[in-house]
Amino acid sequence: MKVGNRQFHSLWGDSSLGVVHIIDQARLPFTFEIATLASPEAVADAIRTMRVRGAPLIGVAAAFGLAMAAARDASDEGLAEAARMLRATRPTAVNLGWALARMQQRLAHASTRERAAVAWTEAQAIADEDVALNEAIGRHGLALLESEFASLERPINILTHCNAGWVATVDWGTVTAPIFMAHERGIPVHVWVDETRPRNQGLLTAWELAQQGVPHTLVVDNAGGHLMQRGLVDIVLVGADRVTRHGDVCNKIGTYLKALAARANDVPFYACVPSPTIDWGIDDAMREIPIEERSEDEVRIVRGLDAQGAPAEVMLAAPSTPVANPAFDVTPASLVTGIITEKGVARALEDDLLRFWPRQHEDKAYVT
Amino acid sequence: MKVGNRQFHSLWGDSSLGVVHIIDQARLPFTFEIATLASPEAVADAIRTMRVRGAPLIGVAAAFGLAMAAARDASDEGLAEAARMLRATRPTAVNLGWALARMQQRLAHASTRERAAVAWTEAQAIADEDVALNEAIGRHGLALLESEFASLERPINILTHCNAGWVATVDWGTVTAPIFMAHERGIPVHVWVDETRPRNQGLLTAWELAQQGVPHTLVVDNAGGHLMQRGLVDIVLVGADRVTRHGDVCNKIGTYLKALAARANDVPFYACVPSPTIDWGIDDAMREIPIEERSEDEVRIVRGLDAQGAPAEVMLAAPSTPVANPAFDVTPASLVTGIITEKGVARALEDDLLRFWPRQHEDKAYVT
Repeated sequence: MKVGNRQFHSLWGDSSLGVVHIIDQARLPFTFEIATLASPEAVADAIRTMRVRGAPLIGVAAAFGLAMAAARDASDEGLAEAARMLRATRPTAVNLGWALARMQQRLAHASTRERAAVAWTEAQAIADEDVALNEAIGRHGLALLESEFASLERPINILTHCNAGWVATVDWGTVTAPIFMAHERGIPVHVWVDETRPRNQGLLTAWELAQQGVPHTLVVDNAGGHLMQRGLVDIVLVGADRVTRHGDVCNKIGTYLKALAARANDVPFYACVPSPTIDWGIDDAMREIPIEERSEDEVRIVRGLDAQGAPAEVMLAAPSTPVANPAFDVTPASLVTGIITEKGVARALEDDLLRFWPRQHEDKAYVT
Repeated sequence: MKVGNRQFHSLWGDSSLGVVHIIDQARLPFTFEIATLASPEAVADAIRTMRVRGAPLIGVAAAFGLAMAAARDASDEGLAEAARMLRATRPTAVNLGWALARMQQRLAHASTRERAAVAWTEAQAIADEDVALNEAIGRHGLALLESEFASLERPINILTHCNAGWVATVDWGTVTAPIFMAHERGIPVHVWVDETRPRNQGLLTAWELAQQGVPHTLVVDNAGGHLMQRGLVDIVLVGADRVTRHGDVCNKIGTYLKALAARANDVPFYACVPSPTIDWGIDDAMREIPIEERSEDEVRIVRGLDAQGAPAEVMLAAPSTPVANPAFDVTPASLVTGIITEKGVARALEDDLLRFWPRQHEDKAYVT
């Protein structure tokens, strides 16, 4: 999507150098900076520190990380070791494990000699497919917005939590794809952007929307219930880090609270989910999805700009203040109106998801 | 309560000088500083800028502000003008209007000559009564904690939102009174402290709890639903800025989301409410309670300490980013398990509240 007047992807590979370039999301929206990752270790570190973030994008990044590993040591052990390191960076989003499993499956059938080239091609394919998945989600989401809100004589008010925007994917973004498409077609939209403490990924969403010229308003995470109570939200759209076969949605901490408010106020609540985010191998979301507990300093320290416009941070809480920082929560399927996928909109029900992906019925463990 | 080893009130009058001293809450918890307010205008400004905050405390402060006005110009017009100015500082908490109405009622029966002295005495009485109200809430809340959680063989996990602590009152705090009393009696408690964006009043609560040695953990506002879903919260205790005769609770933005999560997870949800916070004159909380919309900069700019420990701030969002900042929301009575008052614990029902304050039945407009 656009940054200023230029089109960007959030990540792109350079096959001649064997590196990937990324928009450094740890610096956004304060500084727009391209970083280059040239080793599996650099990729792992960028995922861990969230310079690369977003469930779809960390899958793509990990795939390129494994391709870099294959160029260095294409032995079975070397690849397994690199995959382990990359998979261990973050536990909750299933896309990471999905991409690495797909890479390993592909490489298992290649000779050691050809693995480096095969790996790069496969990583690039995953990246390209991600763009297509998001674009398809965008078309289905757009159709939903058009059919549900055709009669509104004012902008459609969409609330979103965290950043399921284009920087969280290679392009388009799961939540932002339908929004960008609606905006391009002249359908008036307005987006309530949750700040999304502690890491304030809502600022990324606000930045993305501003770059594409989409009207939006930043609010603290506390405000969403009030907005829905007052009829100021027509639909909630969120991304996901892992969705179960039953339609339970694991996403950024705080999503569940918005889903509760949506249900209480008859506001439709949709998750925008590419198929690599569906974990067919999980039955019980509450028990089986590992919820990442991130550093206490993410809560204690807030990053922004100082009065001179230079990156700066302030400490909110002393190191002696006990802090807990769970990064995700689970929204039960019963609160989810629907799941917007690349195949269409499903209800949050196993039978409905299986209509799009029938073979999962026999193959529960496909992606794990 | 204690700050270090000294006992403090959050505000105290000096009748000989005709001034009040306050703990400056705009600087807490980063800097502990006493400020002196010597005119009605200074009091109004301190309320507006939240150097004095908390529904009960702004009532007390306004009463002293009116007493300062009476010392300067005790005419009916002078008092009416000062009351108007003080009342206009903040719209949502009813305590402000309640305290000023009580002061004006008392002064209406006094001669102009004696008004300055009468006003000071009345303001001091309101301040003293506030301490007693909170202590009584503490006793009833303590009894509730003791009876409900006697059989727990681990600490009682309490979640609170915003600061309904002792600095939000003259002493004790509505929510913290039962917590401090339980802790003093050796009943193990642990408090989940919501950060409470945008002004982070949770940091005040964490500071208060730390000063009294009460175990606690700071979490972002997004985390509460997840904690309740996982069985990590036994009870939610919040304060209130205005409670209707029907038991609807208007409190800091985000309270409603926690009430929804509490209901969904069978966690009891109580508001701790002194009677001056009950607005008997309101029937429809959603329509009739004015919700304060505060400055966008409260969302854009975050205050803390820099690396040298000096007060500092960072800008999160550019001035060009549209922001909305509603400061309160309404939790409908249907989500409220009970209201802990100085008279005892009522269900969130008009009949139950009228058992404690029967004469309100005839006198709807008592406090407005």
